[in-house]
Amino acid sequence: MSDQSPQRTGLDQSVGIVKPQSVDITDPLRLACGQVLNGYHLVYETYGELNEDRSNAILICHALSGYHHAAGYHSDDPAEKPGWWDNCIGPGKPIDTNRFFVVCPNNIGGCHGTTGPKSINPDTEKPWGPDFPPLRFRDWVDSQAQLADHLGIQAWAAIIGGSLGGMQAMRWSLEYPDRVKNCLVIASAMNLTPQNIAFNEMARQAITSDADFCDGHYIEQGKKPTKGLALARMIGHVTYLSQGQLEERFGRDLRQGSFERGNDNPVQFEVESYLNYKGDQFAETFDANTYLVITRMLDVFDLAREYDNDPVKAFSNAKCRFFVASFSTDWRFAPDRSREIVDALIAANKDVSYINVETDRGHDGFLADIPRYTEGLRSYLNGVAAELSSAEGSDET
Amino acid sequence: MSDQSPQRTGLDQSVGIVKPQSVDITDPLRLACGQVLNGYHLVYETYGELNEDRSNAILICHALSGYHHAAGYHSDDPAEKPGWWDNCIGPGKPIDTNRFFVVCPNNIGGCHGTTGPKSINPDTEKPWGPDFPPLRFRDWVDSQAQLADHLGIQAWAAIIGGSLGGMQAMRWSLEYPDRVKNCLVIASAMNLTPQNIAFNEMARQAITSDADFCDGHYIEQGKKPTKGLALARMIGHVTYLSQGQLEERFGRDLRQGSFERGNDNPVQFEVESYLNYKGDQFAETFDANTYLVITRMLDVFDLAREYDNDPVKAFSNAKCRFFVASFSTDWRFAPDRSREIVDALIAANKDVSYINVETDRGHDGFLADIPRYTEGLRSYLNGVAAELSSAEGSDET
Repeated sequence: MSDQSPQRTGLDQSVGIVKPQSVDITDPLRLACGQVLNGYHLVYETYGELNEDRSNAILICHALSGYHHAAGYHSDDPAEKPGWWDNCIGPGKPIDTNRFFVVCPNNIGGCHGTTGPKSINPDTEKPWGPDFPPLRFRDWVDSQAQLADHLGIQAWAAIIGGSLGGMQAMRWSLEYPDRVKNCLVIASAMNLTPQNIAFNEMARQAITSDADFCDGHYIEQGKKPTKGLALARMIGHVTYLSQGQLEERFGRDLRQGSFERGNDNPVQFEVESYLNYKGDQFAETFDANTYLVITRMLDVFDLAREYDNDPVKAFSNAKCRFFVASFSTDWRFAPDRSREIVDALIAANKDVSYINVETDRGHDGFLADIPRYTEGLRSYLNGVAAELSSAEGSDET
Repeated sequence: MSDQSPQRTGLDQSVGIVKPQSVDITDPLRLACGQVLNGYHLVYETYGELNEDRSNAILICHALSGYHHAAGYHSDDPAEKPGWWDNCIGPGKPIDTNRFFVVCPNNIGGCHGTTGPKSINPDTEKPWGPDFPPLRFRDWVDSQAQLADHLGIQAWAAIIGGSLGGMQAMRWSLEYPDRVKNCLVIASAMNLTPQNIAFNEMARQAITSDADFCDGHYIEQGKKPTKGLALARMIGHVTYLSQGQLEERFGRDLRQGSFERGNDNPVQFEVESYLNYKGDQFAETFDANTYLVITRMLDVFDLAREYDNDPVKAFSNAKCRFFVASFSTDWRFAPDRSREIVDALIAANKDVSYINVETDRGHDGFLADIPRYTEGLRSYLNGVAAELSSAEGSDET
């Protein structure tokens, strides 16, 4: 499954070259909207080895722009960037593949191989496009449970997710309380604020206003709403970054043009150039309908809604332990939103560790190498690993 | 000039029905970019009466979406909304038209009658459109000085502006130090942060990506980039509001649809509906090229740039007194940005009053009826009026 590539430095802590795997789930998936997916394709990667009693599996739930490729490389091209959470997943890393079997699927509705709007709808033999069913987080969780069944994993040692990945992890703890031992919720919230929803709506407007969106049927029409998707990503991206980070990284530096008087050439600021670049890059690889599906899922997600809007009541169904992390300058999912989770868990008599990480990295801090954060994660997962060993030990005696 | 309309309530404090005025300035206006406007049309409104020694004039500098109609009404239609700052301008109001002669012009580059991108370029006999010269704040200030000449006003008793209006007021204090007695800078900053610039850039992208933008030549082509302009406004608007305000006003309430499972009808949240409405409303009356011109002016504005980037050095040129106000939940122009102004003024030995207003109204607080703010404004302007009276008195003795 993994292979060390000698060209790269630091590979002693890399999972090396990995190959995505996939499964065709043939059991029907009954979606929250009432529609049924009669089978679907799920792409995922795994790192590390599943132990004999299948107790050391960790599920990684990716965020909006993430996918199954969380760690390692797909080729020996030295220019290739590693998976999106490579800094945390690998041998000896906080999510230690010497001890854990790490699974990261691309979610349904996604656009990286798993069944989603880009896929062919078997009923019409055309891409689903805008007719892909609206999803809820529970649908993701249900499909991940089907993947766990496929892999022979009865219970996850841990489910870990940042941002909307944290929402999946929390939903898991309520829907399948017996199948989660530890739930790690990073830079997340129990629902979106109206400001969050507003940003999502603007992103959607950017996409649907693009002349090449074609009411969502752009694939069939041989088009792609690249500009709209790039703008949607910019609108999202700026909310992942803190003011201080933007100040330090870009300030008011110009990329081109000049402030001189007597000059009517347009200026471009570094921050504009950066966001445009990030937007364009994203639009190349992402699918606009997936962006619409996921942002709407985010808006509608509300952990406690079906528990009389009482988070304490909601969490009283959970049986696992929790780790919650927030980032001081995160204004997308501010530390207060994490504290709401922690407060509800405490009130529900659950075992919870909480860390608020001082950083200027904003929401994107959850992907960053911040020692207090990564070591906090490592420390918590050390405890999880120690419990596994002692369980194994007790089996032997 | 003003006429009381009996149909309306509270008209004892209204300037009543007002009529916009205009002037064709025939003196050439040499712009910062090097181009010259050989004359231009300026639309403005005035409230109150200019006193004999022409010393009681107040200049109101409007913000991005504002224009010359700051107070009163244009008709006796009881459904008509008053001017954008009617709560502050009128007889007995903080900007008291019983004592002051209040002037509010629509800025050049605007789209409410003053020469701007919608106007006909005399050289081509077509609308200026995207070829309207790029402007700087000093160009606005210079044109306002020409208006002051036209009105026979040598010095303004006060120049007042909120948001980018505050930038104009500050620029006035440096460019024409002998023509400003008091400078009132509300919810403003000496330059934009990279985050501010990012939001402006996203708004511009929304406009220029609209298929009906036609590279800015939409008027000639009989089109209007309404969707793009509406989205641009939404992107701006959400940054004018605080989180708390959105929470209180909209929360997670639905406008339509339902959270029920087994339902695949799309939901719409109240906050989305509101922002869409605001965006559409704005797009009906505003010009996209004006939005581009002004946001670029904002990005480039930097009060101290030509003073070795030293705000203290910049303000040492000012001769007026200053009033600075900020709003606690304003994250567009945060209180810290106002404090930078105040600190520089103090270091430059200028006379400055500062008020930070506790409110949940965010940046839009500057247009709101918040007693501590409006009374602070009233109190400061009482002092300005008292000085006028004592100056008149001393002339008589």
